[in-house]
Amino acid sequence: MSITRKTRIAIDMDEVMADTIGKFITMYKERHNEDFSLGNMEGKEFREILPPHLSETLRVYINERGFFRDIPVMPDAQEVVKALHDKYDVYVASAAMEFKYSLEDKQAWLEEHFPFISWTNIIFCGHKILDVDIMIDDRIKNFATFNGRKILFTSPHNMLITDYERVNNWQEVAAKLL
Amino acid sequence: MSITRKTRIAIDMDEVMADTIGKFITMYKERHNEDFSLGNMEGKEFREILPPHLSETLRVYINERGFFRDIPVMPDAQEVVKALHDKYDVYVASAAMEFKYSLEDKQAWLEEHFPFISWTNIIFCGHKILDVDIMIDDRIKNFATFNGRKILFTSPHNMLITDYERVNNWQEVAAKLL
Repeated sequence: MSITRKTRIAIDMDEVMADTIGKFITMYKERHNEDFSLGNMEGKEFREILPPHLSETLRVYINERGFFRDIPVMPDAQEVVKALHDKYDVYVASAAMEFKYSLEDKQAWLEEHFPFISWTNIIFCGHKILDVDIMIDDRIKNFATFNGRKILFTSPHNMLITDYERVNNWQEVAAKLL
Repeated sequence: MSITRKTRIAIDMDEVMADTIGKFITMYKERHNEDFSLGNMEGKEFREILPPHLSETLRVYINERGFFRDIPVMPDAQEVVKALHDKYDVYVASAAMEFKYSLEDKQAWLEEHFPFISWTNIIFCGHKILDVDIMIDDRIKNFATFNGRKILFTSPHNMLITDYERVNNWQEVAAKLL
């Protein structure tokens, strides 16, 4: 028997709500005086464009307490997620378990920038095995066993993938779902 | 199109894997020299059996850092969850978001007592909107929009509920699922 409920959307944090790559770029400029631009990142993870002498640094930095606390908000994310929240049952779903010190940072970040999202609608997980209708995510691995509508949010690493419905920014999410 | 996968089980932490009420009893004995037994708790939450002068203390204690770190493991939980893990795709799902300082404690507790559970299979959430086949939980609210097999794990507060498949302990889980 199916249960009637509002349409549920699960929204990813890193590289979707949060400009994590923007933080990487700022951080490498500040700590190593290295300039990285998105231009040469197509189809690549950020760690892959690091020079060899810095290749091990990214994992160390991501695992520092505080790393996830001051990530810039993705342009237009606040306004569009608020409007989605008024229309749908919106969940934030982050694979936060990978980085054990990220959880408190991510909670505080959401409370600061998305205060209208209740604690009941926040999910920190590994595999995203969610009973939702729509997923907005930059990682296709999170779509692997998901039967609902998959919306791929553009990030440099996924730019060569062609098989999914894609949005390039939050304005495009608004155009599709509002 | 349905995707073939192993049967997934989501297992709750508090009052299922973890003897949270056992910790409450020990804590009130130590801090207030008050003895509470499970005998008079049928159909009640623990906070409801506290005397009036202590009624506000429980929420304060639960929100202390460290509260969830040293909760006793429920009898037989380790052996049976390990055996389930060998047969099914086992997830641990806790409504940890309600207590913002519980997340790191719960991660460390799982790592200590259930080290075979990968970070990929841990879910901290509010509403349990999970795409799983079986849920083992002591709170029927977590079954509200779940269409799979619901197994109610006995805890004092749920003892008057009659509508669900019930297990009284981990040996009964083993008898049903192994």
